[in-house]
Amino acid sequence: MTPADPQFDARVRANFAKQVIMSKLRVSLADVAPGRVVLEMPFQDDLIQQHGFIHAGIITTALDSACGYAAFSLMPAEAEVLTVEFKSNFLRPAAGDSFRFEGRVMKPGKTLIITEGRAFAITDQGEKEISAMQATMMVVTGREGING
Amino acid sequence: MTPADPQFDARVRANFAKQVIMSKLRVSLADVAPGRVVLEMPFQDDLIQQHGFIHAGIITTALDSACGYAAFSLMPAEAEVLTVEFKSNFLRPAAGDSFRFEGRVMKPGKTLIITEGRAFAITDQGEKEISAMQATMMVVTGREGING
Amino acid sequence: MTPADPQFDARVRANFAKQVIMSKLRVSLADVAPGRVVLEMPFQDDLIQQHGFIHAGIITTALDSACGYAAFSLMPAEAEVLTVEFKSNFLRPAAGDSFRFEGRVMKPGKTLIITEGRAFAITDQGEKEISAMQATMMVVTGREGING
Amino acid sequence: MTPADPQFDARVRANFAKQVIMSKLRVSLADVAPGRVVLEMPFQDDLIQQHGFIHAGIITTALDSACGYAAFSLMPAEAEVLTVEFKSNFLRPAAGDSFRFEGRVMKPGKTLIITEGRAFAITDQGEKEISAMQATMMVVTGREGING
Repeated sequence: MTPADPQFDARVRANFAKQVIMSKLRVSLADVAPGRVVLEMPFQDDLIQQHGFIHAGIITTALDSACGYAAFSLMPAEAEVLTVEFKSNFLRPAAGDSFRFEGRVMKPGKTLIITEGRAFAITDQGEKEISAMQATMMVVTGREGING
Repeated sequence: MTPADPQFDARVRANFAKQVIMSKLRVSLADVAPGRVVLEMPFQDDLIQQHGFIHAGIITTALDSACGYAAFSLMPAEAEVLTVEFKSNFLRPAAGDSFRFEGRVMKPGKTLIITEGRAFAITDQGEKEISAMQATMMVVTGREGING
Repeated sequence: MTPADPQFDARVRANFAKQVIMSKLRVSLADVAPGRVVLEMPFQDDLIQQHGFIHAGIITTALDSACGYAAFSLMPAEAEVLTVEFKSNFLRPAAGDSFRFEGRVMKPGKTLIITEGRAFAITDQGEKEISAMQATMMVVTGREGING
Repeated sequence: MTPADPQFDARVRANFAKQVIMSKLRVSLADVAPGRVVLEMPFQDDLIQQHGFIHAGIITTALDSACGYAAFSLMPAEAEVLTVEFKSNFLRPAAGDSFRFEGRVMKPGKTLIITEGRAFAITDQGEKEISAMQATMMVVTGREGING
């Protein structure tokens, strides 16, 4: 896929740095390519639900950002990205030493970009897929957007 | 709707207290009824995405818990709840002084419980719907579950 | 909700008449209001899946059209409607003498319109909710659209 | 993936033959493997929506069956399959001479099987992905099920 902005890498990194929630959750940017972004997060005691696994919503927060930045990497320099909707299936409990989140563009577009995400739990025994997402991202320029 | 366990209120509250992530995000339990749970959360500077609004994934985290506990309120005393999947649409930016999350059971069942959730942003001008969720919850007893 | 085109009723009916699949499935237009459309369909022997119920995809076809026309009813005269995505939960088997499909706009917008749908199975004992949908519709004018 | 029933191929074919709607829509079984099923359908004039493309709901009907039979291929001989929910994104208009639908199991399970589906439009210029689905299927034995 061809990014509209040759400076896409720097632009993704600068924008990611503004997502304050990412640093609170200790999510970091592991890889940026045109139409594909990988994030990582260590296991953290204070992100768990009642069974001791990472809460499904937190896995989804990181997957949504991975998908959003995968879409953003293809956008023109002046555009912003908004999440229109997403859907996540949970395949296994979010139990692991760390987690990897891969966002990938399935279909680029001028107004909407369709993405998919996969989350993996990593232990010293290897890694397992724990969640799958389909998400719709919107290219927002100027004053309009999903709320226009 | 009729809860299988007359002690549902105490059981929801005790279980919610074990969701460590809820206290980290300052989400509190505002109301519990059979098949319906309401959560609340104040705006917080460290939960924002790049545009200054609460991250869609955090809104989804609270909505998922609201839907999960709405399902859980109808379950037998020995059962646990697992999120099978959810889907969220984002209607408006998550901008407000505080947020309310309503989870409601659409269809109870012995194995699966289908729920819907609505999130609202509250300001002194009133409240606005910001997100809508449909989610499938699983009744887990003993050793089985989504991973069985 | 205020339709952009005062002739919305005639425009919905004319557009619906062009959905050839609707007549093949014997789906008819029962009601049109701004942001809300109701469709109906009789039970038919040749639409069943392996258990003798109407196939989930056929229920979804009618719900998608109900949601799409609910969105279309609010659009300017020159606009077209495209389904971006939908998600359906199935609450009960699609068993009934006839079926009703209600599409409703949750959030209008210039580019995207977010809708919800509910399907009901009708017998002489009353009616039961069988499916719930959330769907994103796109307002398409000129040459762009989801593929732009 | 290992099917619970060595006769899975014959069982899928016999069950598919009972989905009356498949023959009405001229959908045929192109390939059956453990955890993966491929269906095909020619373009048909009477399945179109208002722009002359196959209706999104019909594409979804075939994708749902592909995913359902992919799940069914792994189930024990006495089990039935039920669609709990699905979500579809539409990537391009359903324009083509014929269509292929691939259903694949992402995560098998005793009670729930998580699947994904991809639909392709085929012309003499090649093929294009037109829709992506995530779907949850339920293994039903005896009297219970989604309605239990």
